[in-house]
Amino acid sequence: MKNLTLINENYLNLEESYLFSKINQKMEEYQKENPEAKIISMGIGDVTRPLPKTVIEAFKRAVEEMGRKETFKGYGPEQGYPFLREAIIENDYEPRGVELNLEEVFISDGAKCDTANIQEIFSTENKVAITDPVYPVYVESNVMAGRGGPPDKKGQYKNITYLPCTAENNFQPPLPEEKVDLIYLCFPNNPTGTSLAKEELKKWVDYALDNKSIILFDGAYEAYIQENGIPHSIYEIEGAREVAIEFRSFSKTAGFTGTRCAYTIVPEELEAEDSQGRKHSLNRLWNRRQTTKFNGVSYPVQVAAAATYTQKGQKEIRESIKYYMENAKIIRENLKDAGLEYYGGVNAPYIWIKTPNGMNSWQFFDKLLKEAQVVGTPGTGFGPSGEGYFRLTAFNTQKNTKEAMERIRKIEF
Amino acid sequence: MKNLTLINENYLNLEESYLFSKINQKMEEYQKENPEAKIISMGIGDVTRPLPKTVIEAFKRAVEEMGRKETFKGYGPEQGYPFLREAIIENDYEPRGVELNLEEVFISDGAKCDTANIQEIFSTENKVAITDPVYPVYVESNVMAGRGGPPDKKGQYKNITYLPCTAENNFQPPLPEEKVDLIYLCFPNNPTGTSLAKEELKKWVDYALDNKSIILFDGAYEAYIQENGIPHSIYEIEGAREVAIEFRSFSKTAGFTGTRCAYTIVPEELEAEDSQGRKHSLNRLWNRRQTTKFNGVSYPVQVAAAATYTQKGQKEIRESIKYYMENAKIIRENLKDAGLEYYGGVNAPYIWIKTPNGMNSWQFFDKLLKEAQVVGTPGTGFGPSGEGYFRLTAFNTQKNTKEAMERIRKIEF
Repeated sequence: MKNLTLINENYLNLEESYLFSKINQKMEEYQKENPEAKIISMGIGDVTRPLPKTVIEAFKRAVEEMGRKETFKGYGPEQGYPFLREAIIENDYEPRGVELNLEEVFISDGAKCDTANIQEIFSTENKVAITDPVYPVYVESNVMAGRGGPPDKKGQYKNITYLPCTAENNFQPPLPEEKVDLIYLCFPNNPTGTSLAKEELKKWVDYALDNKSIILFDGAYEAYIQENGIPHSIYEIEGAREVAIEFRSFSKTAGFTGTRCAYTIVPEELEAEDSQGRKHSLNRLWNRRQTTKFNGVSYPVQVAAAATYTQKGQKEIRESIKYYMENAKIIRENLKDAGLEYYGGVNAPYIWIKTPNGMNSWQFFDKLLKEAQVVGTPGTGFGPSGEGYFRLTAFNTQKNTKEAMERIRKIEF
Repeated sequence: MKNLTLINENYLNLEESYLFSKINQKMEEYQKENPEAKIISMGIGDVTRPLPKTVIEAFKRAVEEMGRKETFKGYGPEQGYPFLREAIIENDYEPRGVELNLEEVFISDGAKCDTANIQEIFSTENKVAITDPVYPVYVESNVMAGRGGPPDKKGQYKNITYLPCTAENNFQPPLPEEKVDLIYLCFPNNPTGTSLAKEELKKWVDYALDNKSIILFDGAYEAYIQENGIPHSIYEIEGAREVAIEFRSFSKTAGFTGTRCAYTIVPEELEAEDSQGRKHSLNRLWNRRQTTKFNGVSYPVQVAAAATYTQKGQKEIRESIKYYMENAKIIRENLKDAGLEYYGGVNAPYIWIKTPNGMNSWQFFDKLLKEAQVVGTPGTGFGPSGEGYFRLTAFNTQKNTKEAMERIRKIEF
């Protein structure tokens, strides 16, 4: 009897995530027992406001182009159309003093794909560090590639370096004690909603320069930054072009979660080496990866994304972000009045509640569901250091957000 | 001095492909020397006819939905919306007697991504077989993952099993002599334009059943099949649900090369094993891969793809395919009159010319460029067994196709 084809056994190390199915199950049970209850969900990190008018108009015009022989577009450049890459450089980087070449900008269909795929160009021998709690994609893409090893009882993978971010260290990840090769940082942070000041991020760039590490910097929430002194791009830090890849997305910035467009910056200075000590350009490796395994983003979607950079588009986007950040403010003020300890919500659409009285994340979930009919996300869903925390998002309507907060204020904690 | 982060050294095994840059360079040089020349390109496998009206209308309506609060869509299911998956099952499979469940259909942004990513769920120990000549993505995605090994002088990777398809075996790939685990088949074939009859494909399904192999079946050109007896889906063959994953695309079927939508079928019966001999569902593994590393296709694009299945949409698509296949016929008839030996072009938009008089692929390229100002693709660009062949595509306009053929007929071979 011949052997079956073999699977990638690294997949067997993956912990099954029951987070959102467990949340849904609990919601459904409660709704069944309480058919009158009007549950308000503040759990999912997804936008709710429609695409801006300017974006819709450009999107439609580009669709029409696809219907005419003269303007039809077949395969585009895998790296994205120059019109979009130029708009990104001119609008997202130049005003902050960051100069980029066209070849350093790669358009994709999502930061999820890019942050999951980037590890492919690195050796499976590299040591990965992540902040904890964290967006699970960074961890799981590395586990799938063999950099995780088996999980322990707490759900932590043996070969991954966890950098706990809790109230005790003010959610500023500690520098690793050992040498790590790949460091995932996301600021403003999902799920904690906290941010890193420029001098804090500089410590990381310096660590990477000293240790020849690569920082994978996820800036998906950059547009939510309200305060001065918070870097919008890691390239605002001196030396970052030698150590950092940056991921950005139109998802949370312009409501593209269902439209799909993002981009990744791989500076030409970035290098890593082979086992013979020869240096290789990461920009070239990523270009090879993308041209071999990806075929570019839908043309009308790229036109729609470019429209976010028009004057009118920028104004409309800012209005949406302002709306969400007003929700965040409403949440913060009410949590304060309710006597709850919380973090974030100032430069990010997430508010990270410290559960009171030693309650664990799921106990707090149950209490909020039963006593306020409000649903959020238990912090443990983002890693072991999320225990004792709870995430609320600012993406619901203002009406629902206010209603949810009034209900929470009536709870006795 | 600490070590730099290490790269994925498998990338160093990849041969640089200069095919299309070399083609462009030669074209530009010729044009410079002959500014009056009107070069006709029949080299690139990309559609030229616009998206059908029905598709454009649905596409625009879906964009408008994204602009209204009530109909806005955020994150969709990573596997695609049920409306599109259902339409695929009902239209592409049921009429051919193939029954599929919704969970077996995965929507993606392109068959290039899917055929490149599918290898991730398999062990790097698996032995890969490809037909030669071949779509380079199958080979290179495996080389990147470590299943290729170094290339030899002919450009063949050490650990990959090549199955030569030439005029000598009528382009029917020979069954591997050794046991292979993963077999890439593409029929109707790119680049040869040839197809496999049902009884020929059955031999492969039987081989896979006997040898516990997995067939990765690329059916991107299915819509071009004109003759009876050519399977449109590998699942028309008994037993294929146990051994085959099928890739399909809207690119060549409906002109979506620049719009980006495709799908992959992973039947629930499909299994592979771990090193302990335990069996695992490939459908579950692929679902885990896609939900972790992909975030679904743009909603308006999925609506546009679904519109191809309306009665009007089907009619319009068939007209485009008919147009391209008329080009293929024009090419075949003229090549015959010119006394050239050729294959394909009956159930596929590609015509595979045997270069005359022992000319090699590039010599033939140069002759066609200089004597007819017609550009095609040298067969060597698709693998060593492509030497002595040359690909023309049927995707240009009928006017240009006729003009190109008139010129070729005037050449003395």
